[in-house]
Amino acid sequence: MSPLPRQVKLVEVGARDGLQNEPGVVATATKLALIGKLADAGLRYIEATAFVSPKWVPQMADQDTVMRGAPRREGLRYSALTPNLKGFEAALAAGAQEVAVFGAASEAFSQKNINCSITESLRRFEDVMVAARAANIPVRAYVSCALGCPYQGEVSPEQVADVAGRIYDMGCYEISLGDTVGVGTAGKTQAMIEAVARRVPLQHLAGHFHDTYGQALANVYAALQCGVAVFDSSVAGLGGCPYAAGASGNVASEDLVYLLQGLGIETGVDLAALAAAGDFISGELGRPTRSRVATAMAGRKEKQA
Amino acid sequence: MSPLPRQVKLVEVGARDGLQNEPGVVATATKLALIGKLADAGLRYIEATAFVSPKWVPQMADQDTVMRGAPRREGLRYSALTPNLKGFEAALAAGAQEVAVFGAASEAFSQKNINCSITESLRRFEDVMVAARAANIPVRAYVSCALGCPYQGEVSPEQVADVAGRIYDMGCYEISLGDTVGVGTAGKTQAMIEAVARRVPLQHLAGHFHDTYGQALANVYAALQCGVAVFDSSVAGLGGCPYAAGASGNVASEDLVYLLQGLGIETGVDLAALAAAGDFISGELGRPTRSRVATAMAGRKEKQA
Repeated sequence: MSPLPRQVKLVEVGARDGLQNEPGVVATATKLALIGKLADAGLRYIEATAFVSPKWVPQMADQDTVMRGAPRREGLRYSALTPNLKGFEAALAAGAQEVAVFGAASEAFSQKNINCSITESLRRFEDVMVAARAANIPVRAYVSCALGCPYQGEVSPEQVADVAGRIYDMGCYEISLGDTVGVGTAGKTQAMIEAVARRVPLQHLAGHFHDTYGQALANVYAALQCGVAVFDSSVAGLGGCPYAAGASGNVASEDLVYLLQGLGIETGVDLAALAAAGDFISGELGRPTRSRVATAMAGRKEKQA
Repeated sequence: MSPLPRQVKLVEVGARDGLQNEPGVVATATKLALIGKLADAGLRYIEATAFVSPKWVPQMADQDTVMRGAPRREGLRYSALTPNLKGFEAALAAGAQEVAVFGAASEAFSQKNINCSITESLRRFEDVMVAARAANIPVRAYVSCALGCPYQGEVSPEQVADVAGRIYDMGCYEISLGDTVGVGTAGKTQAMIEAVARRVPLQHLAGHFHDTYGQALANVYAALQCGVAVFDSSVAGLGGCPYAAGASGNVASEDLVYLLQGLGIETGVDLAALAAAGDFISGELGRPTRSRVATAMAGRKEKQA
């Protein structure tokens, strides 16, 4: 095990990965207000939207307005999910400073969700890689099902390492290893990261944990101990399907920042401001936050009042 | 860091620590049904009730009926909280096979909650220790505020070690170190346990984590890495004050068992049966479970149906 990193890079994915699954369309102004509050809280990597077809994801139909309207700040980088060249070009034109592509570590998941093999799915974003290199835009990649698959169950660490390695070789600067289903536990997290790190240098890896089984923070802690220093999270734990019992979003950014602060790790984020951003979007969506830290902070305020 | 333990002893505290804070009185038959289901799930250490004055804790007024009625099983041990000799004698007469006493690591908490100094609070259970030794009944001790105090804030690892050590010297065979407020994070957990283990042999320590800030499982994982092999938990995450926003109970037994199973650690517990016990009591209390694992399992069942 490595000593814990002194600084962690946080990638806020609430506005995209989080809101993407919202059944009701969220107003563009609300999205922009959320992004502004996240920027004010000190977040420096914000995935703002996805340049995908509005037919597939109606929630992201305002991608252009969101990317153009997101408040610019010194040192703050906006990224967008761009599954193909058309999306990449639109994202670039709208001012995206980074883009993201995605693949799956599970063959069954790739077939079911992307309708093609893993190999074919990687081939499909080759032209994004070429265009990004020409435009000098960094490309991030998500590898889903890194700790398990809803269709095939187990996914071996070696399989994750193989897919992550191929994506890294294509030129992605950061590989976000996603426990999409949220089924993984700390020991498996460690084994998976150790396997991937034998193929991709550790400093290019990120952890992306969903909290379906309540394991996300324990998994983050295990990943930190392996030396991972980049984590994705969603303010208020946005994501998953809010109407399906048991479906749960990303680890809440507030809970992650609380853990990191407690470990003495720098994030540059103001926890109170972050919790305020989470309160804002939870209020707009009309449901309680999924962040335990935000809930506890609200309870303390109530007591003091 | 030690290698992870191969087996973990689980102490189920839902029926006592969990239900104790319920504002509405839970029927004795419901408590007994819950305890029966926990026993059926394979739990072997169940804190069934508290022999305290019904004036202080009306919820525990049926202590005698509960302890006498709890279904006996080979290898299953029932314990009860007994703050004084009168409670100890009543617990023994009702068939308790173990008793528990409590102290605080924080002077401010002791003054506010027990109305005396830490030293005085320890003195008060000296006669329980004497009687327990004579009756050959093992005594467990809870040390609250081991990672922070709602009144004084920080509690140093050395202070926890001092109180735990004095209690150990009095003859308690197991010291449960409680993050009563649920504010601790993994690094502090590790520092605290390392400090206590310099004073009390590690095999006599237990971890008791509340999930107020969502950190409980990460803290369990940190404690496991220090070699702690006994953990307290509440089925369905019972505990805390259900009507106060932000107040949260113990770590849910289901979530803890899921973590341990994932780590390949034996607990002897059947997770599905445990989740059924949690569903039962949540239904009786008329509110959703706080276990994320139970929530996820229910979601999967719904999907399959």
